[in-house]
Amino acid sequence: MKQISGGVTAPKGFVAGGVHCGVKTHNKDKKDLALILSERECTAAAVYTMNRVKAAPIYVTMDHLEDGTAWGIVANSGNANACCPLSHEYAEEMCQYAAQATGRKAADFVVASTGVIGQTLNIAAIQKGMPEVVQALSKEGSDAAAHAIMTTDTEKKETAVTFTLGGKSVTIGAIAKGSGMIHPNMGTMLAFLTTDCAITEEMLAEALHETVPRTFNRVTVDGDTSTNDMCVVLANGMAENDQIEWKDDNYTVFQKALRQVCEYLARCIAGDGEGASRLVTCTVHQARSEESAERLAKAVVASPLVKAAMFGADANWGRVLCAMGYSKAPFRPEYVDMKFASAVGEVEVCRQGMGLDFDEEAAKSILSQDEVIIDITLHEGKEEATCWGCDLTYDYVRINGDYRT
Amino acid sequence: MKQISGGVTAPKGFVAGGVHCGVKTHNKDKKDLALILSERECTAAAVYTMNRVKAAPIYVTMDHLEDGTAWGIVANSGNANACCPLSHEYAEEMCQYAAQATGRKAADFVVASTGVIGQTLNIAAIQKGMPEVVQALSKEGSDAAAHAIMTTDTEKKETAVTFTLGGKSVTIGAIAKGSGMIHPNMGTMLAFLTTDCAITEEMLAEALHETVPRTFNRVTVDGDTSTNDMCVVLANGMAENDQIEWKDDNYTVFQKALRQVCEYLARCIAGDGEGASRLVTCTVHQARSEESAERLAKAVVASPLVKAAMFGADANWGRVLCAMGYSKAPFRPEYVDMKFASAVGEVEVCRQGMGLDFDEEAAKSILSQDEVIIDITLHEGKEEATCWGCDLTYDYVRINGDYRT
Repeated sequence: MKQISGGVTAPKGFVAGGVHCGVKTHNKDKKDLALILSERECTAAAVYTMNRVKAAPIYVTMDHLEDGTAWGIVANSGNANACCPLSHEYAEEMCQYAAQATGRKAADFVVASTGVIGQTLNIAAIQKGMPEVVQALSKEGSDAAAHAIMTTDTEKKETAVTFTLGGKSVTIGAIAKGSGMIHPNMGTMLAFLTTDCAITEEMLAEALHETVPRTFNRVTVDGDTSTNDMCVVLANGMAENDQIEWKDDNYTVFQKALRQVCEYLARCIAGDGEGASRLVTCTVHQARSEESAERLAKAVVASPLVKAAMFGADANWGRVLCAMGYSKAPFRPEYVDMKFASAVGEVEVCRQGMGLDFDEEAAKSILSQDEVIIDITLHEGKEEATCWGCDLTYDYVRINGDYRT
Repeated sequence: MKQISGGVTAPKGFVAGGVHCGVKTHNKDKKDLALILSERECTAAAVYTMNRVKAAPIYVTMDHLEDGTAWGIVANSGNANACCPLSHEYAEEMCQYAAQATGRKAADFVVASTGVIGQTLNIAAIQKGMPEVVQALSKEGSDAAAHAIMTTDTEKKETAVTFTLGGKSVTIGAIAKGSGMIHPNMGTMLAFLTTDCAITEEMLAEALHETVPRTFNRVTVDGDTSTNDMCVVLANGMAENDQIEWKDDNYTVFQKALRQVCEYLARCIAGDGEGASRLVTCTVHQARSEESAERLAKAVVASPLVKAAMFGADANWGRVLCAMGYSKAPFRPEYVDMKFASAVGEVEVCRQGMGLDFDEEAAKSILSQDEVIIDITLHEGKEEATCWGCDLTYDYVRINGDYRT
């Protein structure tokens, strides 16, 4: 398995593009309309936000994917197209404009929006921009599409991996956007995956549903979950591998590649959380179940007090133990070992639930890196889980104190 | 019912005091040891943190209150006395020192600690300080005790109410501390209540358990819950009212007074949340149950995105609706009406789940006040609930980025 460049256009038969059409009014250099298109019909699978308030594009996409197929994805940033009287019509219109400009049908498209909730989408701008983004479609267009779905993200999120199935080279590509409001299950997170793998709709859905809970749903930025999130994968079969129809060895390889792609993007999303200065990874070892390990690790990376301590590079392990305590997962505090680690070393801070004397200077240096690891061992079982988050900074407050205006 | 001054020493027969003994090393002007004492034995009731990791003073207090009686409360700030090898012994020793200095028994005392977790408590300082705080006990000592339990609180929290039961004047007094890590159920929150009401242990416990879920447990500052929290009430019977033995009219009056005291302190705690610049009150009306109303209101005041918007006085009602959506409480988004209000007016922002055009300038002015109200109507039933929180500010990050050092 090899990580390669090219994002969503790395797999055979996919083109993509991104343009500025005018939904984002503040800055004309910021792209806000993305299109991904396959030259063949794709099997498709998706996972959606668990929020009870779902934006119109979610419902329209659910409807369009009912037959398990799609040809492309149309998405805008700058406006969530949610909670407005015409949201549903506009989401349908986005698909119609994409269909008209590409010679397909509206129901062939997945549609997504991200941005502010409750303000009317500038659908005229999208209508006007659609021919432009179709014109821009190319094999090098993943970068532009990745930029066109960003809101407060500071970096585009894009990856691809290639691997071999029965002698055929198969590729999975992806772009994503994250930033604020990222929390299990699905923050304001969009992830668009493409693959040339030949795989049935059932197996594609199975692979996605196995992967998302262990990757994107283990990311938390601020505990909020949004109205608009989705992770969708399109598979056009152009790699010409024998179609994956059940959980055989080929499925296992495909699923592993899918997990690698999603885990990479999950880490990007966490590390680029709104205002984040560092990625915080928490792994819980030797838990009695994967579920309890995940619950504990999530509580740690979600805790505002832990996040603020990480910002200050403060080895305040008591807050970590405290967050574990209110996670509602069963564990024995008196068994807990804990260390902090990063590229420059590690420091053990707690053994059997009690604080250790440690070198504060060394701890500060370890916690001052771009990625820090909170490593917890429960001594209760054999299961483990890793969750990803980021620190809580002044910039988070600045960004979210005045996002709309 | 009348609010009066005097705090925990307003009821007959209670004295209190607070001194600096040296647990807080940074600033000798900051008091860190508090004592409250009754001249008669009290019936006692308490509510404790739900965190699985409970600090030693919680267990010691549970033990000492097993007989339903107490004479006093000893508490320190600056150190949580949690997760250290000698924490349990030190919590017992605090009670022993208090007992020696007052001529009582160790088991007559409630003990509480608040501050950093996992660092060894300076028990020698407390031993040395105990005679001083006993010396300082007085009818005017509530103020000093209220100061001595503060950590990052910016203001002392103290109140008292007086009312009449069967011709006798009865008083309930209280002090509390809050600030960071406040979240249902019980943040790093200490609330000490005293009353001269004659009431059985059973009725006192019943009244407290009816009150705490509707007051302190409806406060959230940052979603974290701590290891050390407790709310305890001591009743010495010196008002000489007919003892409250069942849920009669007198009980109802007492419970109402208790709720007024606790609600006052809950609002103080929310408004003085770490770094807070304003109190955020969310009321959900016309819900199908009080539980779902509470769950929705809590999700709103706990949302970092709502909190950051409140800091920026940004009428971002979409985030409110979004927080309701992930609260896991059932409601129909398409029925939701919402307005923002404060002392200077109100603005309707959403009707039947859809955004309204509103005057952004007026909304900004309304949201720039010290207390802002998010008022939500569900049109689904007759129940309602109010929760309290605060905005998320730069100062929260500053305070918690480097709390230990």
